[in-house]
Amino acid sequence: MTSKIRVAVVGYGNIGKYAIEAVSETCDMELVGVVRRKSSLGEFCAEPAGIPVVSDVRELGKVDVALLCGPTRTIPETAEQYLTLGINTVDSFDIHGDALWNLRQQLDRTGKAYNAVAVISAGWDPGLFSMIRCISAAVLPDGEAYTFWGNGVSQGHSDAIRHVDGVKDAIQYTVPVEEAMNAVRSGSRPKLMTREKHHRECYVVAKPGADKASIERAIVTMPEYFADYDTSVTFLEQDEFTEKHSKMPHGGAVLYSGNTGVNAQMIEFSLKLESNPEFTGSIMAAYARAAVRMAREKMYGAKTVLDVPLAYLPETDRATLIKSLL
Amino acid sequence: MTSKIRVAVVGYGNIGKYAIEAVSETCDMELVGVVRRKSSLGEFCAEPAGIPVVSDVRELGKVDVALLCGPTRTIPETAEQYLTLGINTVDSFDIHGDALWNLRQQLDRTGKAYNAVAVISAGWDPGLFSMIRCISAAVLPDGEAYTFWGNGVSQGHSDAIRHVDGVKDAIQYTVPVEEAMNAVRSGSRPKLMTREKHHRECYVVAKPGADKASIERAIVTMPEYFADYDTSVTFLEQDEFTEKHSKMPHGGAVLYSGNTGVNAQMIEFSLKLESNPEFTGSIMAAYARAAVRMAREKMYGAKTVLDVPLAYLPETDRATLIKSLL
Repeated sequence: MTSKIRVAVVGYGNIGKYAIEAVSETCDMELVGVVRRKSSLGEFCAEPAGIPVVSDVRELGKVDVALLCGPTRTIPETAEQYLTLGINTVDSFDIHGDALWNLRQQLDRTGKAYNAVAVISAGWDPGLFSMIRCISAAVLPDGEAYTFWGNGVSQGHSDAIRHVDGVKDAIQYTVPVEEAMNAVRSGSRPKLMTREKHHRECYVVAKPGADKASIERAIVTMPEYFADYDTSVTFLEQDEFTEKHSKMPHGGAVLYSGNTGVNAQMIEFSLKLESNPEFTGSIMAAYARAAVRMAREKMYGAKTVLDVPLAYLPETDRATLIKSLL
Repeated sequence: MTSKIRVAVVGYGNIGKYAIEAVSETCDMELVGVVRRKSSLGEFCAEPAGIPVVSDVRELGKVDVALLCGPTRTIPETAEQYLTLGINTVDSFDIHGDALWNLRQQLDRTGKAYNAVAVISAGWDPGLFSMIRCISAAVLPDGEAYTFWGNGVSQGHSDAIRHVDGVKDAIQYTVPVEEAMNAVRSGSRPKLMTREKHHRECYVVAKPGADKASIERAIVTMPEYFADYDTSVTFLEQDEFTEKHSKMPHGGAVLYSGNTGVNAQMIEFSLKLESNPEFTGSIMAAYARAAVRMAREKMYGAKTVLDVPLAYLPETDRATLIKSLL
């Protein structure tokens, strides 16, 4: 009988709040506390009931793993701090490419030096989508991966609209183009730019007396954000906006079109999420378990989702897993 | 610079034939030969050009990994033989449940005793579908997995039809019921029996003068195979049958309906395969690489797809993988 995994949640934003819930619903992990910046302590907001909130993780006693739920830009420094304390970490660092590789190299060194595991980029993209791209490319080397995002809220684009003159509130959904997805499904392996794969739907509450036509023009012609896309703008009243557009849905799909000899083979993976941050929090909670299991086996260093065997993720024991689910 | 992985393909059926091609198209593996039963040697069939065909793997010199492409029932004994020679194995053993667990236990002992790795059940179900069921259940413990098969050929059901009086040739496709899939997608987590999730389409060539009505009746009322299903029977001429129904397409989908708090989260993974055996052969080739990589790291014993980190599968080196695909 192994003792429960002691988890700290670092950061109390959308992802952190749900990570707390996800951890609380397991039988093999316990939440020992939430770590927030000193400046955020006592700040007016609903604190989690009955859970210690501290500004220094060392106040929480033994912590096996910390879920780093702060913004991506804070991850390299925060992860480093926790690893040097011998605490395993899980983050959902979401910048692809060299930044991800550099983080991996940095945390791999630190994790190995301090006998800790850092699971990095445990979200859905990077994360689950990466896993599908990897297995697809391995099985069908003659093939091509297409990633589509949406329907889902883009925070950056929503912010950009809110800065337009006359706009009171706004939200922007990225929507995958069905024709582009079908072109991929046909097996023709089309060349598609990101902008050909997505269009943008904007829902806007105008300030009283604002000129809607000029708001719409300002949005659809905005360079970088909208000018190159097929963009729609819908105006609505504040009540309807609040009622219909307060959730953070997201999702997307990885389509992989490959061939074996003359035969076409199609792999498709999709997510339809009513709450993007809750899903990410859930992924991180599952990888918290994996981080501790790997640390117990002395597999120290940085791990991406491509390095963690899937059997390390669920609470279920291996025999049950293989008999009932494989 | 590591030397090329030396691969033997055991069995020269539909899967074995394509496994040969899949291995030949890599840069890091080489096919050293095909092993067939003594009774099959010299049998009239297209032998692979320029590849040694033997009845005893020891005639091939050093072999790093054997792809066991024979029928499932032969796997326990064949895998055992190869492992005791210190040869890593990959199979696509396809019986779920206790049989799979027993195979895992048996080959785990043998692999550890002889310093070899046995990757078992590396197909798509069990296999890729199992991976999706595992990660989904780990991330969304409050949820339910639904597996649908098809459109695809069921060999067993096709055989059953061929034994009906007056039937010259026949093929049966298992087809997932779209309404059942949509019920799952709605998030209602319906209770569905296998028969409610699939119907059966039969294409039949009748012998000259045979009574088609009685053939149809014999099929749709056949106990166990068809009586409990919604079954359609279409008659056609031999030419059309040969033209349209000589491939072995298959596919299917895993739908996972889960919740985080009040929010519905849906995960969907699907395959549309023009050639089922070619896809399975491709999966096995990728796991051949993983088996050898794990053996080089002394991770001996039996591994399911839930035990193999995905980074072990593609030919691509880890840095490129993380930078370009994660």
